Amino acid sequence: MQNNHNHRHRNGEENGEAHDNFFHYNEEDERCDEGAYECTHCDVAKFRYPDGTVRLRNPHIELMDQDILYHLALGSESHDLVEMFGDVKFVCMGGTPKRMEAFAYYIMKEIGHKLPTGTTLQDISQYSYRYSMYKVGPILSVSHGMGVPSIGILLHEIIKLMYHAKAKDPIFFRIGTCGGIGLEGGTVVISDDAVNEMGQHHYEVPMLGKPVRRPAKLDRRLVRELRALADPEDPYETVIGTTMCANDFYEGQGRMDGAFCDYSESEKMAYLTHLQSNGVKNIEMEVVPFAALTHHAGIKAAVVCVALLDRLKGDQVCAPKEVLDEWQIRPQKLVGRYIKRYLQTKGRISFDGHGSMAVKSPRRFKLVQQESETFD
Amino acid sequence: MQNNHNHRHRNGEENGEAHDNFFHYNEEDERCDEGAYECTHCDVAKFRYPDGTVRLRNPHIELMDQDILYHLALGSESHDLVEMFGDVKFVCMGGTPKRMEAFAYYIMKEIGHKLPTGTTLQDISQYSYRYSMYKVGPILSVSHGMGVPSIGILLHEIIKLMYHAKAKDPIFFRIGTCGGIGLEGGTVVISDDAVNEMGQHHYEVPMLGKPVRRPAKLDRRLVRELRALADPEDPYETVIGTTMCANDFYEGQGRMDGAFCDYSESEKMAYLTHLQSNGVKNIEMEVVPFAALTHHAGIKAAVVCVALLDRLKGDQVCAPKEVLDEWQIRPQKLVGRYIKRYLQTKGRISFDGHGSMAVKSPRRFKLVQQESETFD
Repeated sequence: MQNNHNHRHRNGEENGEAHDNFFHYNEEDERCDEGAYECTHCDVAKFRYPDGTVRLRNPHIELMDQDILYHLALGSESHDLVEMFGDVKFVCMGGTPKRMEAFAYYIMKEIGHKLPTGTTLQDISQYSYRYSMYKVGPILSVSHGMGVPSIGILLHEIIKLMYHAKAKDPIFFRIGTCGGIGLEGGTVVISDDAVNEMGQHHYEVPMLGKPVRRPAKLDRRLVRELRALADPEDPYETVIGTTMCANDFYEGQGRMDGAFCDYSESEKMAYLTHLQSNGVKNIEMEVVPFAALTHHAGIKAAVVCVALLDRLKGDQVCAPKEVLDEWQIRPQKLVGRYIKRYLQTKGRISFDGHGSMAVKSPRRFKLVQQESETFD
Repeated sequence: MQNNHNHRHRNGEENGEAHDNFFHYNEEDERCDEGAYECTHCDVAKFRYPDGTVRLRNPHIELMDQDILYHLALGSESHDLVEMFGDVKFVCMGGTPKRMEAFAYYIMKEIGHKLPTGTTLQDISQYSYRYSMYKVGPILSVSHGMGVPSIGILLHEIIKLMYHAKAKDPIFFRIGTCGGIGLEGGTVVISDDAVNEMGQHHYEVPMLGKPVRRPAKLDRRLVRELRALADPEDPYETVIGTTMCANDFYEGQGRMDGAFCDYSESEKMAYLTHLQSNGVKNIEMEVVPFAALTHHAGIKAAVVCVALLDRLKGDQVCAPKEVLDEWQIRPQKLVGRYIKRYLQTKGRISFDGHGSMAVKSPRRFKLVQQESETFD
């Protein structure tokens, strides 16, 4: 296959780009999808159909009568998932329902997406009482809760959703918050590497009583593309670095302010400095399964977080709410720029047509609203 | 101290009750709190003050200017936590905000708690956008999200809340859902033991890069007391058993319906049968940190879950919504009985006084409501 298609594999060990061995590239450095999943030289691309739709690495799903995505309140036979989600190109995830609802409205404005008259966004997964999911054209905005198991459940179900929907070459983003190491609060971090608390580059899941390890790899090209979109005018830094994934917020991240603490301030500082010298720029709680499960599914993915504090200076977040609110928008802006540019390139962006409310004059619109409110 | 107070330690290794070595008991088998935390023979009771208030195993908290419980949207200096939470005796936790709101209203009715006229329950942690918390007299009802890290964060902050509030001898319950092993859907399981996916009885948290293990122990006496409250008239079984805590819902629990699956049906069945033969009655995603962190804090705790399906018969939950809704109330009922009996014993229950709406005649009350609605 490699010879037939004249493609080569980017291989980290050979050319120093450890994270680009993800897709096949031809000699012109363009991705080659044709037949890639049949390639005999590696198995990293075996889980895509030639048209870019997601191929599941689970032979059992096709044999099931129906597949219920419990935590999303969707099902393969109860819902027409191709009709509902076939056009999805971007899946954006973040911790809280509130932040992801805000992102849905933000990206709607950014790409000029209009809702039909008399409609508003609805939480598609409202009946799951677990995650919240909003759809704005080709973009899904979903909350993932806190920690590895919570984002793990979501990833399983979103990857299955992409498969059932026959979505083509979807790209996943995590838009999060984190603690920075030697970074000023408000700094944006794009992860180019993911490690667990033991410094390991894999996601370990015990399966049938035996630990199984999956490499936690992120797409280096996507990292570079995102970094290039950071505006030099931005009043904050956007950096690239290794992100550590912790399973606990307090003791697991060397904080001194949990219910328990058995180490000293100097031991904590020695640990954080050790992480810093190993290239760790930030600590959060989801990057390892996010990187590992998207990589395992052959889905391009990136993590962009904003640091809420510098852990070298303390444990508690002290910035006022208004400042924190502005900081949380920064990763949204960067990912928003990527999505907007992508849709512009593909001619899929349009500011034509009317939305759910077509406003001719904002001043008169406001007056009419006010008059209506006081009319009884 | 042991001689002075004439108490003995329940010790699992000596008398076969591995989980009762938690408090000190005197010769009359009554718990002895006096001076227990100074006992030289063990260190399990060192984290309570003589009056029953929680003593933190973290020397740094007392030295802090303020302690912000981020994920609860509360703070030790911004809120009068003694005034707000000093009377808390029971902390009930469950996965979703919706279920814990429902439990708050359920327990309010059960204990005859009345709200002042013109008031309703409010989500105390609404501004955290993480957890939901409701308070009904001496009972807190809090959602913990999904998985170990999510409940871990909550436990750190709730234990600190109990400390700041000077709550006395609080008892924690987890009211959850689970997959049963060889149990009919709807069966209630009280956990008397907690194991992780590797069959280990501890919660492992990497701290400063080194794994630290904490025993995951539950209170055996509380298990027996809860079991005794199961009504023989209940149209379902209430059993005691070991609960396995998984970090993943799909592959981590041997399900075949995740986005990935590398094992066969027969390998899965062999695994589940192996668990069953080791006394595992159910699988969920929080019991290990719940048992370990409450034990480490010297807090009495129990886990009561309802099985939504028998994993020996399948992976997907197939019961209709109405049935599932009724099942989810079963653990609430059992814990409700415990709380009600406790408050009755202490004379802290009362059906006197008026609530936010005092109804003299339900029939006339309804009529007035209806007339008001149609009056324009």
